[in-house]
Amino acid sequence: MKTLEQQKHAASAWFRELRDRLCAVLENLEDERSESPLPAGRFRRTPWRREGGGGGEMSVMKGRVFEKVGVNISTVHGEFSEQFRKEIPGAETDPRFWASGISLVAHPCSPLVPPVHMNTRMVVVRGGSEPVAPFADSPIPRSWFGGGADLNAIYPDAADTESFHNALKEACDAFDAAYYPKFKTWCDEYFLIKHRGEPRGQGGIFYDYLQNGWERDFAFTRAVGEAFLSAYPPLVRRHMHASWSEEQRRFQLLKRGRYVEFNLLYDRGTRFGLMTGGNPEAILMSLPPEVAWD
Amino acid sequence: MKTLEQQKHAASAWFRELRDRLCAVLENLEDERSESPLPAGRFRRTPWRREGGGGGEMSVMKGRVFEKVGVNISTVHGEFSEQFRKEIPGAETDPRFWASGISLVAHPCSPLVPPVHMNTRMVVVRGGSEPVAPFADSPIPRSWFGGGADLNAIYPDAADTESFHNALKEACDAFDAAYYPKFKTWCDEYFLIKHRGEPRGQGGIFYDYLQNGWERDFAFTRAVGEAFLSAYPPLVRRHMHASWSEEQRRFQLLKRGRYVEFNLLYDRGTRFGLMTGGNPEAILMSLPPEVAWD
Repeated sequence: MKTLEQQKHAASAWFRELRDRLCAVLENLEDERSESPLPAGRFRRTPWRREGGGGGEMSVMKGRVFEKVGVNISTVHGEFSEQFRKEIPGAETDPRFWASGISLVAHPCSPLVPPVHMNTRMVVVRGGSEPVAPFADSPIPRSWFGGGADLNAIYPDAADTESFHNALKEACDAFDAAYYPKFKTWCDEYFLIKHRGEPRGQGGIFYDYLQNGWERDFAFTRAVGEAFLSAYPPLVRRHMHASWSEEQRRFQLLKRGRYVEFNLLYDRGTRFGLMTGGNPEAILMSLPPEVAWD
Repeated sequence: MKTLEQQKHAASAWFRELRDRLCAVLENLEDERSESPLPAGRFRRTPWRREGGGGGEMSVMKGRVFEKVGVNISTVHGEFSEQFRKEIPGAETDPRFWASGISLVAHPCSPLVPPVHMNTRMVVVRGGSEPVAPFADSPIPRSWFGGGADLNAIYPDAADTESFHNALKEACDAFDAAYYPKFKTWCDEYFLIKHRGEPRGQGGIFYDYLQNGWERDFAFTRAVGEAFLSAYPPLVRRHMHASWSEEQRRFQLLKRGRYVEFNLLYDRGTRFGLMTGGNPEAILMSLPPEVAWD
């Protein structure tokens, strides 16, 4: 059995490996749209340090398939601020945290190619110590995995939605038949734009506080990454050669406005990151390059 | 002395009158830019009803000086939701509220013409009753005025900033020499984009919970409206005939992104309105028509 330090190392190494593979696959798609007069895009990587400890690497590509796609990995540690300790179970006794993860947001040029979001992470609190009094009997975890992936097509395509969900369902079913229905519902609830009463997209899965044993949860998190890696590129390939109208472009920009509304008003990661002094460039990498409101 | 009902009536009638005068002045500016091949813009008015009581009128113009300018008036009443009662002093004993106000946000076409925001309102809580136990000795107001105006130039111009501030300072000074320095500081603190450590614009004034006697506060709120009405159009006129570059347009779109970040992450009115089931179209009328993020 791995020590906590070995677990942390294995998780952050996986997020880095997944980042490399995702970037390679997305650059391949850029090469494949050879009919475009624009050059194929390539990722530019920018490392960043976090003041309180750790840091990450942003990879951003602005190309001919992807108007903007960002893949961020980070491994950070430190102590929760006074203000946040009250909101994190157990943090008032021991405010230490460690977190490592990957986050991808793709905004394609074409309104016909679906935007997508994927994010997985491992979180350790209280220095990874076993529950201590007064939490000895409580379900407060010492470390867990969380994440998910969701599709945000401007013009939903039933076949795309089905194949995206099927890939995630297969990854889930290999671990627990209860995962997919539970994580799909969680995703639908989380990505609801409440003030509009509109879903952000076509859903996918969302999970958090997963703690069924580190080996098992890590394997599941890797399976989610693999499912995403195999499920998304075919959806891009299927639509990226089609031309689009000005009206479709306009509708795309308006839908992106909804995406911005969700991210700034509701997204926990965005708000948490900005309110705790995270790197705004890395956190807001998820925002679309061009947006409109009516 | 006016009864509370007469006060409410007088305030909401003023906000309507100010709306009419603002729309007329802004339409005049549209006429004045006669060198544009585009037609002069005109406001389109849309009434809306609020489910819990009251409603308002949105006026939106998309023209050749103003890419989008919205002027909203509303007079609403009802009860604070269970969730919000805890945050409003005195609302747990009596959750009733009444509020009337005007809000203007202008996003000019030209990056050289400064965007602007102005908003004033009268608020009544607890049915306007005098403080009651356990609040009999507390400073919880039964009604108050709030508002302000701030300039958000893409390319700040010292003369513009000075004349805008001077007009507001004059309005303040006629009432209390302490108002302008206090309300200017409040504005600077409120319109800080915290995660960027950047001010939203060149400031102005911001005031709230003003309760120095209804007649006096209402007169001050009218003076703020008049100051805005006389101060902003000359700034538009001074710059609206100049041409601009693609680079300036790009910078304008990026600055608008900061504006969106502020409004969705921090603006109390926006968050409060959306979280309490307000009309999203009216609340988000403040968002710019086209925006970009790097």
